Amino acid sequence: MLVDLRSDTVTQPTAEMLDAMSRAHVGDDVFGEDPTVNLLEAMAADLFGMEAALYCPTGTMSNQIAIKVHTQPGDEVICDQTAHVYQYEGGGMAFNSGVQSRLLPGNRGRITAEQVAAAINPDDVHKAHTSLVCLENTSNRGGGSCYDIQDIQHIRTVCDNNDLSLHLDGARLFNAIVARNESPKQYGALFHSISVCLNKGLGCPIGSILIGSQAFIKKARRVRKVFGGGMRQAGYMAACGVYALKNNIIGLQQDHENAKEIASNLIKTTFTAGLLPVETNIIIFEIQPPYQPAQVAAALKEKNILVIPISSTQIRMVLHLGITQQMVKYVVDTILNLNL
Amino acid sequence: MLVDLRSDTVTQPTAEMLDAMSRAHVGDDVFGEDPTVNLLEAMAADLFGMEAALYCPTGTMSNQIAIKVHTQPGDEVICDQTAHVYQYEGGGMAFNSGVQSRLLPGNRGRITAEQVAAAINPDDVHKAHTSLVCLENTSNRGGGSCYDIQDIQHIRTVCDNNDLSLHLDGARLFNAIVARNESPKQYGALFHSISVCLNKGLGCPIGSILIGSQAFIKKARRVRKVFGGGMRQAGYMAACGVYALKNNIIGLQQDHENAKEIASNLIKTTFTAGLLPVETNIIIFEIQPPYQPAQVAAALKEKNILVIPISSTQIRMVLHLGITQQMVKYVVDTILNLNL
Amino acid sequence: MLVDLRSDTVTQPTAEMLDAMSRAHVGDDVFGEDPTVNLLEAMAADLFGMEAALYCPTGTMSNQIAIKVHTQPGDEVICDQTAHVYQYEGGGMAFNSGVQSRLLPGNRGRITAEQVAAAINPDDVHKAHTSLVCLENTSNRGGGSCYDIQDIQHIRTVCDNNDLSLHLDGARLFNAIVARNESPKQYGALFHSISVCLNKGLGCPIGSILIGSQAFIKKARRVRKVFGGGMRQAGYMAACGVYALKNNIIGLQQDHENAKEIASNLIKTTFTAGLLPVETNIIIFEIQPPYQPAQVAAALKEKNILVIPISSTQIRMVLHLGITQQMVKYVVDTILNLNL
Amino acid sequence: MLVDLRSDTVTQPTAEMLDAMSRAHVGDDVFGEDPTVNLLEAMAADLFGMEAALYCPTGTMSNQIAIKVHTQPGDEVICDQTAHVYQYEGGGMAFNSGVQSRLLPGNRGRITAEQVAAAINPDDVHKAHTSLVCLENTSNRGGGSCYDIQDIQHIRTVCDNNDLSLHLDGARLFNAIVARNESPKQYGALFHSISVCLNKGLGCPIGSILIGSQAFIKKARRVRKVFGGGMRQAGYMAACGVYALKNNIIGLQQDHENAKEIASNLIKTTFTAGLLPVETNIIIFEIQPPYQPAQVAAALKEKNILVIPISSTQIRMVLHLGITQQMVKYVVDTILNLNL
Repeated sequence: MLVDLRSDTVTQPTAEMLDAMSRAHVGDDVFGEDPTVNLLEAMAADLFGMEAALYCPTGTMSNQIAIKVHTQPGDEVICDQTAHVYQYEGGGMAFNSGVQSRLLPGNRGRITAEQVAAAINPDDVHKAHTSLVCLENTSNRGGGSCYDIQDIQHIRTVCDNNDLSLHLDGARLFNAIVARNESPKQYGALFHSISVCLNKGLGCPIGSILIGSQAFIKKARRVRKVFGGGMRQAGYMAACGVYALKNNIIGLQQDHENAKEIASNLIKTTFTAGLLPVETNIIIFEIQPPYQPAQVAAALKEKNILVIPISSTQIRMVLHLGITQQMVKYVVDTILNLNL
Repeated sequence: MLVDLRSDTVTQPTAEMLDAMSRAHVGDDVFGEDPTVNLLEAMAADLFGMEAALYCPTGTMSNQIAIKVHTQPGDEVICDQTAHVYQYEGGGMAFNSGVQSRLLPGNRGRITAEQVAAAINPDDVHKAHTSLVCLENTSNRGGGSCYDIQDIQHIRTVCDNNDLSLHLDGARLFNAIVARNESPKQYGALFHSISVCLNKGLGCPIGSILIGSQAFIKKARRVRKVFGGGMRQAGYMAACGVYALKNNIIGLQQDHENAKEIASNLIKTTFTAGLLPVETNIIIFEIQPPYQPAQVAAALKEKNILVIPISSTQIRMVLHLGITQQMVKYVVDTILNLNL
Repeated sequence: MLVDLRSDTVTQPTAEMLDAMSRAHVGDDVFGEDPTVNLLEAMAADLFGMEAALYCPTGTMSNQIAIKVHTQPGDEVICDQTAHVYQYEGGGMAFNSGVQSRLLPGNRGRITAEQVAAAINPDDVHKAHTSLVCLENTSNRGGGSCYDIQDIQHIRTVCDNNDLSLHLDGARLFNAIVARNESPKQYGALFHSISVCLNKGLGCPIGSILIGSQAFIKKARRVRKVFGGGMRQAGYMAACGVYALKNNIIGLQQDHENAKEIASNLIKTTFTAGLLPVETNIIIFEIQPPYQPAQVAAALKEKNILVIPISSTQIRMVLHLGITQQMVKYVVDTILNLNL
Repeated sequence: MLVDLRSDTVTQPTAEMLDAMSRAHVGDDVFGEDPTVNLLEAMAADLFGMEAALYCPTGTMSNQIAIKVHTQPGDEVICDQTAHVYQYEGGGMAFNSGVQSRLLPGNRGRITAEQVAAAINPDDVHKAHTSLVCLENTSNRGGGSCYDIQDIQHIRTVCDNNDLSLHLDGARLFNAIVARNESPKQYGALFHSISVCLNKGLGCPIGSILIGSQAFIKKARRVRKVFGGGMRQAGYMAACGVYALKNNIIGLQQDHENAKEIASNLIKTTFTAGLLPVETNIIIFEIQPPYQPAQVAAALKEKNILVIPISSTQIRMVLHLGITQQMVKYVVDTILNLNL
């Protein structure tokens, strides 16, 4: 038994999802003729109460397209200093859109309306033109932390008052929605665009959806083509997304409980110095010196448990639908008895 | 019965390919752990006798990555004036790479070493720095025309003498290889990078492979990530590619014969004023006034035959593995008796 | 006596212009406090009947700023195939703006409304979005050819009907205005933006002015800063521009007469195979084989006359305010008696 | 008497400099024929013991060119969080070069080798490729602070070990050199490229010089052309630079003494809560609440002393060669008796 807690990107589709995939009706999506892609896009737009959606091969592409459509080269984009769009998309904001990042020190990845307001540049040729705010919910590097939705409302008000667009990197948005007992439509009402990953908690092999207004998605479709993201018979992969939106959201709750179960035992171990609050499916814990993250990760690997040291003092574990109750029990037993 | 001759991108996978897809072993390709993707990349590199390969969602992305890796912003890229990279990739050369096109008037999409040599800019700050030549084989807008491989050798010599890279947009390269009875390794020896489409003649739902040296592919992998083309469990789609490379190349010969069969009948019709030579799976024919391309296309559509008017005087038909002998016979019968 | 006919960029300021320069009142233009720059910009806007203007170090920067403000990355710009913005600005359209060029085969550098209309891309994600038309008047590579202003009016109508901007590279616009007995305001009424060079026919050491609406110039000022074109006490150079706008436009007529005088004698020589029509201050003539352009240029250089071979068959001569009547006579005598 | 302490960019040339300007020998620098530009570039290269130099209209352009030549789009550039290249160049790093900034919290604008080493990204496609470190000496927002040259040596070692380029934004480098009694050659030996402003402490109307290797300057000259910075008879402005390099460096010492004189009196005032250490010609002081920076600036303006509030708690004063001893005395008297 291998327990892969490195990321929720490692999930493999279930038999039911595979079945949906192989029975998909497909067509040439560049001609707009793939019925399954069209269905997925319509479902996603409807779910969030927005006008339109676009299926993309990855969440990185969804985010990069959104940033491009919302900005002009030379603009400045406000985000948390740990944001995926800045840290883990290969410098894409500058490469693809020619925009500069204004990084704010958030609270576990979450920034405030006050911080945003203070970070907007004045109208001065020396200063880049601020045009976009990107939030991430849940925050990956914040340990799966969730925004209070009224805090997002305050940020939206600042955006409205300053003619800024507001994009949500919702790679793990369904985790937040489930954890906070919210609805997608609440998010659709607050953002100009939202990207959601089908690949992470929802368990699809690949895919992401970008959601927004008709005018936004029309521009996004053009940018997707330029990046080379306009696939042909994408319906096989989209079929997994259709299945996941119908069936896999509810299961995220179990991942969250599993994360809390493991975390509550981690804190008892000698090698754990502390934990970020566990709100969803991510556990980030501090290693107690003289132990080292790499050392703990190696010891776990010997027990067939895979984790990622994400800094010189921290390890991350991510729960997902590939992790069974039996695996959780095994992880708990292993960490409580780990020889270092 | 619908006969879709609009493009070879409309093919749907056969039962065998679908079976290969649903039984694929997959993993997280961003961690380099998808065995099927790894197999496909190794097969492709080996087939062309090159060092490495990279699986991409589309041929447009493969081309755009190659152009980016071979150039710096402000460079100039030499290609035929009908080249897909200039005409049909959404302005991607300028958008993604900041490079300018130097368009040459080729012979049915094929340019010569003499033209290339004459188009290289001198070392002058007023002039963009020429750094790359892109060929397309077969040429889409040239009606599926094929290069003589010794003409490519002459172009490569010009490139070597002038420190230029040479990229092949091989979206339909296997058509040329089959038509000319050549081998992929002959191409691998002539180009610095090659993109091939799995989606067109080979019949996969999606996908393209970019092939080159180890150093080139390392850089290409980084650019793929920035574009958002680094997918996770891509092995389901890659499995189709593995199947296609093993089983579907040989069948291209039949597509070519089908194209010739249809063309030899088209020329007998009153609405056809002329034909580009049919070398592979594409037929481009001129409509005899007072008939109009849109009118002929509409008449064919009423008979359930789909084609694309590609200019104010021309129609294109593309053969592919979705077109059976029975369909070819139906097309021939229909065009010989078409009421306009 | 050295007669430099290589370009009208080689002019040196007259004593009066130098005097205006050294007595200029200056300030920090980045703070908007240089009175001479402010005066020059106001004069230029007023001359063309447009709202605002921006002083730039070079005509290349004026053009590049205009293209940037009028476009988004991935757009397509229509221009003549010999256009300075494509041929002689270092690939700047792609580098600075990420836009692709659509090159038209004009008549001595001048394109028509029909050509423009036919070159506009349809609304299709495969095709770059057409957003701008750039004209050049006079056309450098057209041998100083001038547009008929009603032809520009037709192009503007096409632009209006298709939501395109229209920019004029007016590096030598005053030559056209003088030759055609037009007024700058006729041009101000037809274009969304105009760049004019102070350096060429007008004889300033450096400088160009970009002219347009208030909103356009506000954006242009920001782009100028990003390029590094926001100079401080630019008033010394601007003072030359103020002097030139007042005093040097009228003298262009003499340059045109000088060009015609030289051209009418060139045509008598054995080494001249033909001439482009001489409309303004540029002469482009074909060399009669077996003579070679480089050979003729070398022979002229021995006689202290500098010219530029601009192709394998052509030489260009450019008249300007540094060329006196005595020099013109010397050039005529020399060419009529040149030993090759 | 107006005492303008807003910036050292506001200086006006002396009579001697004006005389040098109006008597300059000039030529067309795009042809490489301006003798004064050539002289200035040779002087600057020689002064720093480097191979070559390039005259640019502004320091922003010099910096932006250097960043472009040292990087590829998608790279990451390490600098202090207050760096001019990030804060005051209009988002140019992203716009012109497509690179992302990695901002470090330095000590008054100065970062350390340890910080740089820790900020270099691993070789991972998720992370932008680190390729350049930019230092600023003196640091503008650090209040004119100077690096210890051995600290720069340590940073250079980190760069060498990690294949990074090292650029110096030396807009006020001569202030540091004079304050620390160093030589330009010490800097030439440590950096791959250096930009110096002729406009600030040295008192020229416009201009900056970029200095580096022959290969670097060849590439830089191409980028300057693309930005539109290749001016024609630039020798008039370059003549001011030649004069300034010969005559105006030594005078910076007086500016530094003037700054210390004013600072030592500022600290006695009731409206001053604190001062950054005054190392060169810049004074940044904190305003004691309930006084406000805008209020203090307004009170000084009434006394004909211009300063800039640079944050919600700070005011900046900059000394320069336009500030006489009499003015310094007047400023001291005024601040000691300011009614608020």
